[in-house]
Amino acid sequence: MDFAYSKKTEDLCQKVSMFMDKHIVPRIRQYNEEVHAGTYPVSFMEDLKALAKSEGLWNLFLPHLKDDEPGTRLTNLEYAPIAEITGRVSWAAEVFNCNAPDTGNMELLHMFASPEQREKWLKPLLDGDIRSAFCMTEPDVASSDATNITTLITREGDEYVINGRKWFTTNASHPNCKLFIVMGKTDPSADSYQQQSMVLVAQDTPGLEVVRNTNVLNHHSPEGHCEVVFKNVRVPVGNLLGEEGSGFALAQARLGPGRIHHCMRSLGAAEVALELMVERAQERKTFGKYLYQHGSVGEWIARSRIEIDQARLLVLKAAWMMDNVGIKEARKEIAMIKALVPSVLATVADRAIQVFGAMGLTPDTPLADIYGAGRSLRIADGPDEVHLHSIARMEIKKHQKSHGQASVYLTPPNRL
Amino acid sequence: MDFAYSKKTEDLCQKVSMFMDKHIVPRIRQYNEEVHAGTYPVSFMEDLKALAKSEGLWNLFLPHLKDDEPGTRLTNLEYAPIAEITGRVSWAAEVFNCNAPDTGNMELLHMFASPEQREKWLKPLLDGDIRSAFCMTEPDVASSDATNITTLITREGDEYVINGRKWFTTNASHPNCKLFIVMGKTDPSADSYQQQSMVLVAQDTPGLEVVRNTNVLNHHSPEGHCEVVFKNVRVPVGNLLGEEGSGFALAQARLGPGRIHHCMRSLGAAEVALELMVERAQERKTFGKYLYQHGSVGEWIARSRIEIDQARLLVLKAAWMMDNVGIKEARKEIAMIKALVPSVLATVADRAIQVFGAMGLTPDTPLADIYGAGRSLRIADGPDEVHLHSIARMEIKKHQKSHGQASVYLTPPNRL
Amino acid sequence: MDFAYSKKTEDLCQKVSMFMDKHIVPRIRQYNEEVHAGTYPVSFMEDLKALAKSEGLWNLFLPHLKDDEPGTRLTNLEYAPIAEITGRVSWAAEVFNCNAPDTGNMELLHMFASPEQREKWLKPLLDGDIRSAFCMTEPDVASSDATNITTLITREGDEYVINGRKWFTTNASHPNCKLFIVMGKTDPSADSYQQQSMVLVAQDTPGLEVVRNTNVLNHHSPEGHCEVVFKNVRVPVGNLLGEEGSGFALAQARLGPGRIHHCMRSLGAAEVALELMVERAQERKTFGKYLYQHGSVGEWIARSRIEIDQARLLVLKAAWMMDNVGIKEARKEIAMIKALVPSVLATVADRAIQVFGAMGLTPDTPLADIYGAGRSLRIADGPDEVHLHSIARMEIKKHQKSHGQASVYLTPPNRL
Amino acid sequence: MDFAYSKKTEDLCQKVSMFMDKHIVPRIRQYNEEVHAGTYPVSFMEDLKALAKSEGLWNLFLPHLKDDEPGTRLTNLEYAPIAEITGRVSWAAEVFNCNAPDTGNMELLHMFASPEQREKWLKPLLDGDIRSAFCMTEPDVASSDATNITTLITREGDEYVINGRKWFTTNASHPNCKLFIVMGKTDPSADSYQQQSMVLVAQDTPGLEVVRNTNVLNHHSPEGHCEVVFKNVRVPVGNLLGEEGSGFALAQARLGPGRIHHCMRSLGAAEVALELMVERAQERKTFGKYLYQHGSVGEWIARSRIEIDQARLLVLKAAWMMDNVGIKEARKEIAMIKALVPSVLATVADRAIQVFGAMGLTPDTPLADIYGAGRSLRIADGPDEVHLHSIARMEIKKHQKSHGQASVYLTPPNRL
Repeated sequence: MDFAYSKKTEDLCQKVSMFMDKHIVPRIRQYNEEVHAGTYPVSFMEDLKALAKSEGLWNLFLPHLKDDEPGTRLTNLEYAPIAEITGRVSWAAEVFNCNAPDTGNMELLHMFASPEQREKWLKPLLDGDIRSAFCMTEPDVASSDATNITTLITREGDEYVINGRKWFTTNASHPNCKLFIVMGKTDPSADSYQQQSMVLVAQDTPGLEVVRNTNVLNHHSPEGHCEVVFKNVRVPVGNLLGEEGSGFALAQARLGPGRIHHCMRSLGAAEVALELMVERAQERKTFGKYLYQHGSVGEWIARSRIEIDQARLLVLKAAWMMDNVGIKEARKEIAMIKALVPSVLATVADRAIQVFGAMGLTPDTPLADIYGAGRSLRIADGPDEVHLHSIARMEIKKHQKSHGQASVYLTPPNRL
Repeated sequence: MDFAYSKKTEDLCQKVSMFMDKHIVPRIRQYNEEVHAGTYPVSFMEDLKALAKSEGLWNLFLPHLKDDEPGTRLTNLEYAPIAEITGRVSWAAEVFNCNAPDTGNMELLHMFASPEQREKWLKPLLDGDIRSAFCMTEPDVASSDATNITTLITREGDEYVINGRKWFTTNASHPNCKLFIVMGKTDPSADSYQQQSMVLVAQDTPGLEVVRNTNVLNHHSPEGHCEVVFKNVRVPVGNLLGEEGSGFALAQARLGPGRIHHCMRSLGAAEVALELMVERAQERKTFGKYLYQHGSVGEWIARSRIEIDQARLLVLKAAWMMDNVGIKEARKEIAMIKALVPSVLATVADRAIQVFGAMGLTPDTPLADIYGAGRSLRIADGPDEVHLHSIARMEIKKHQKSHGQASVYLTPPNRL
Repeated sequence: MDFAYSKKTEDLCQKVSMFMDKHIVPRIRQYNEEVHAGTYPVSFMEDLKALAKSEGLWNLFLPHLKDDEPGTRLTNLEYAPIAEITGRVSWAAEVFNCNAPDTGNMELLHMFASPEQREKWLKPLLDGDIRSAFCMTEPDVASSDATNITTLITREGDEYVINGRKWFTTNASHPNCKLFIVMGKTDPSADSYQQQSMVLVAQDTPGLEVVRNTNVLNHHSPEGHCEVVFKNVRVPVGNLLGEEGSGFALAQARLGPGRIHHCMRSLGAAEVALELMVERAQERKTFGKYLYQHGSVGEWIARSRIEIDQARLLVLKAAWMMDNVGIKEARKEIAMIKALVPSVLATVADRAIQVFGAMGLTPDTPLADIYGAGRSLRIADGPDEVHLHSIARMEIKKHQKSHGQASVYLTPPNRL
Repeated sequence: MDFAYSKKTEDLCQKVSMFMDKHIVPRIRQYNEEVHAGTYPVSFMEDLKALAKSEGLWNLFLPHLKDDEPGTRLTNLEYAPIAEITGRVSWAAEVFNCNAPDTGNMELLHMFASPEQREKWLKPLLDGDIRSAFCMTEPDVASSDATNITTLITREGDEYVINGRKWFTTNASHPNCKLFIVMGKTDPSADSYQQQSMVLVAQDTPGLEVVRNTNVLNHHSPEGHCEVVFKNVRVPVGNLLGEEGSGFALAQARLGPGRIHHCMRSLGAAEVALELMVERAQERKTFGKYLYQHGSVGEWIARSRIEIDQARLLVLKAAWMMDNVGIKEARKEIAMIKALVPSVLATVADRAIQVFGAMGLTPDTPLADIYGAGRSLRIADGPDEVHLHSIARMEIKKHQKSHGQASVYLTPPNRL
């Protein structure tokens, strides 16, 4: 369980970090202004992507590249600290072609796509030429319980016909979004976990309509968290990803690495919030003392440091386990970081906001966005409670398997 | 300490409640759509105001009306439950001419304005014909410590010249906002609490510029929380409110009732969040159980009920004290509700968001706005920490005055 | 809903308070030393009881006295502040014949005892000549769900035969404890809530054995929280309290006032903890500042004040409701204070311990005991979770009855 | 940063674990009964020590053994998981001669004792023949700020004369305790951190009196947390440990490893609490469901798993840093685990108590003791707040050194 960052990782971290400092951080204001003015993708994005690619900072997230594919082969543990660095700016990951949900979609296609599907969709995604969306969550049901999903994918002759409504479909407003991977039921009468399948839907397929780009906690994302309607959308049967009934398994396979990415990016954002808090606490004075000299501010700084460092170690452990013992064995750890890190992020950002006072509420700092990201991640991809219950179930099973003997620590009186 | 609502209050509560149900709640969607489309004030606002006035539901917040002034005379305790009802919809208070900061401004003018000032500003405010802003917070200093304020109000001949920058100036984007009450230093060399004064500035005075309407936790308010620049703004000396050097005292006088209003409105919003949580918990099923049957959801409902009910009693006590022993004696209780209620609101809304899942993040519910309101109220008008420290100071003084004898409860061994 | 303390209450409060200051607080050390040395009841208890009785400070808790019974008739609301005062010293209530579980037992007997039972048990209890125990909780089942109770009370001819094991039976180690009120099943085949009955068992009945006095969070109570075994214990049928099958109803009737008493006493103890915290914070210096000048200490003081004051208002409201609308209508409020106040007590004591540092852990302060009392009250008489779920259930029912319309506050887009 | 347990560690862990299962856990009841009956040291302790020594499970904590000293040489990282295992039973560490404060005292003597001191004190300590105490905390001052210490160590001729009062002196009631290491001021006029020295005082020196063994949160330790008075206690100057004025530095050197030990033992105890919670949650039913099926219980289990696993990784990181970059560089991490782990322990134990209900309060489970240990560790060796402030100070310094540039993430509008 060696969490030390390898030489390769250290080098890449330094390169990514310098890239961030030189090319990305100085453009935060410009990004905000262009998006605010309705320019999206922002004017400099393609240039930055080209630069990143030319420096070998491309597709770093993907462990299983082929020789002819653009990108750097890294383990989850190696990629994790890079994700943390890119997480410091909300839109930075795309520069390195490492942004969700494209990352997860590329992983899915890499593992399960047919040669035709690879050529048509995976290649341009790996090149960063197109963007993609993943349609899972539905407005009408609690889709954290995947068996609740109602979208139907019905085979008719050589076509699948898709009917359903999805929302929180990230990227669907991105002008370059050309592919929608849709999860739905091909066989509602099958066993719970065999009902679903995934199909690939081109953005311009008739019947697919992006109804609206929904604000999230009042935050507007230009790439979109969208509501998407599928009304008699017809795709050739060749657009099925993997096999019929494999949707649930595919979704599971997609999740693990994505959670590492999300969590590490979140910790990067948490570090920014903490740095801002530390800096502000030394600048402002109230009632004759610097803010950090007011007791609770110092404690917030300290607790934030503890919480971030602890959480990072747990994420690295989960990454290490995925690399070394496999996603299945790492399930508990993956659930643990998913249930933990969003709260850490929201809490640290919340403290930073309080230290900034009024300014912390404004768009003049990234704190409101960081807070909102943390808060909404407590729901995205399954609410905390679902993950906590999975963890509890695994703890209980582990105990049952070990023929639980905790009772040897009890000393009730002997009763006659 | 009778907190029972009087017959008068009960009647008014019922009338306001019916008014809300009949005229306001059904227009929530229309309000959102008009504001989103850039129509502000919304098309139906003046009609609703006229209706409310005709039904005697007008200026209910103002305890010291004169005979020729429009409105209903209520004590703080009597008004409190009405504020709670209007707080259920974020924009409802204006319908009854009971919205901040106009309420506080009207109170200030009522108590301290000269006859000319009353005629020019108070009258149209009481009639709801104009709106007003209150300029206190500044971006460049921690203005929760009011001695930090840097805006200068310099007398030159028969004029005051104002220079400074304010932000979080509510109402400044409202098309009807005609008056800005500005806090600044007339004498920076005086004792800390005698340096400040308030002056009345007409909206169209040269040099006054509303620079931007700042989002608050990504929420856009059409009436605005604005940054306002005063650059050599000149007003006649007759625009001074009260006396030179009285600014701090005026600000204090303005605060008490406003905090009751804010807190009760917050509890109204918290009730809506709780009702939504309760309703959702009965509608959705995950993993074969209704949400409320999942343990923590039930506990959230219960804790929310406890926290709201407790907080309401404390606000009513503060109101009762203001009415019966005066603002000064009620200072601790006023600080207590200010330090408490925003957190209650944010916490209840946060739980409701979690119960709603993805939908709780969207604009399809009022929860994101309610959460944001609670969170920003933890900073507005002094961050929690400032109020907590005031309370601690008062507790310590109380103990010192009583020649603190807690040590009689200690039993260290006698030492030789 | 007038929470003001009546003249009668104010007078009694002052008398009780002076009695405490003069006779009880100065004996805290002596009490500890005598108990530590094994002297129990302590040497001065009967003298203090006689004094309290002679001053009319006797049986204050009992609202429904008869003319020939010793004591002062007070409503729950009137008694509440007196309970708070006596709660400041853990053993003070007994001086006024107001200690649990004797209070609840006297209430039970007052309401349901036959003339013979009154003469034999109630009279000496009202006179303070004997003590009594209440046997409900059982070690072998989760007895917060009363239907789990396993003790059997079997009728054989003119006798009931009792078999079972109880624990947490308060008072059972008290040398004066002469009566055990025992809850058990007379008809395990009846409906869940008709299976149980209560019988009166004299302390010297063969087969009744007090097995041990169990420490509670390492605290040793001289009066005992005991494990009691009933092995073929035979009592005459005349010892049945009320009717067969009424046990559950009797237990319910017993609970309400007891919860007010417990909660108010807890708040009295919380006030002592807060006073000690405030005093300590002004005495000790670390790193050049008084403790209260270290940020979080000030905030702990303030939050403790808020939490205590809020909780007190809620308890008074529950008391007022019991007096004015009845126990049944006050069920939710009674559950709310039960789920709330123990945590307030534990939290305030926990903070006080932290402010005291090492000394806070020792028996030189009452804080460890106060903390332990608060913590164990979170379990005694039903764990928090049980009460929170009752509250949630009542909220949900209320919402269902009102044909829940919270959805009028939602604005999902209209869907075609 | 390889946290994997080495082969050597794995083997030792297995041996220690088996030793615990076979020899220690089965004697928990006997230990409690003997201590309760006043037998201390318990009858089997010396046998178990001999057995542990014979199996090579001895002095495992000491990294710098000499060839002729009994024990196993382990790094901090290697020892950490063993400490976790021994922490599962409160009195187990002594069996392996790894109990505080003897461990820290042996470390001190190992590093700083003169040959005579080593022969006289270190040797029998390493052999487990005697026990020792460490006298630092004082009742009369806030000794978390070590400059407050008032005990005087005055040189008179060839002797030091010690006058002062200490408390929380662990081991002082142990019949085998022969050595007291005393911290006091040899030069109150020197610089703050050069005033103190440490001297070795034999238990039977005239003037040294163990005044009482103080309960800690009502817990009685047979080895004692004692109040000790030094009244004109005279020792030869040769009893000085290290140099005059080095007391503070010695204390610092003593702390690091001790905190790793304490924290890992705490995590061992936390694991026991969690295992008990998991087991209980599967055994008891209320209201028709197993406890773990009641929502919050499952979440408590999951959160406990997350908190323990996170904390363990942080402790291991601190141990790794101590081993690889030195105590000084590891200062922040050491402060972090000290500020974190006691709360984790207290929280997990608190949840376990709640799951157990009434039984959790009794001595029939180890939970009350585990909770009390966690709670008192939040104060022992410096309250949380002191460590949090150290961490905050280090964060602020780090930021200042890096010429803090967090402001590049801010985007306030450009102002004219």
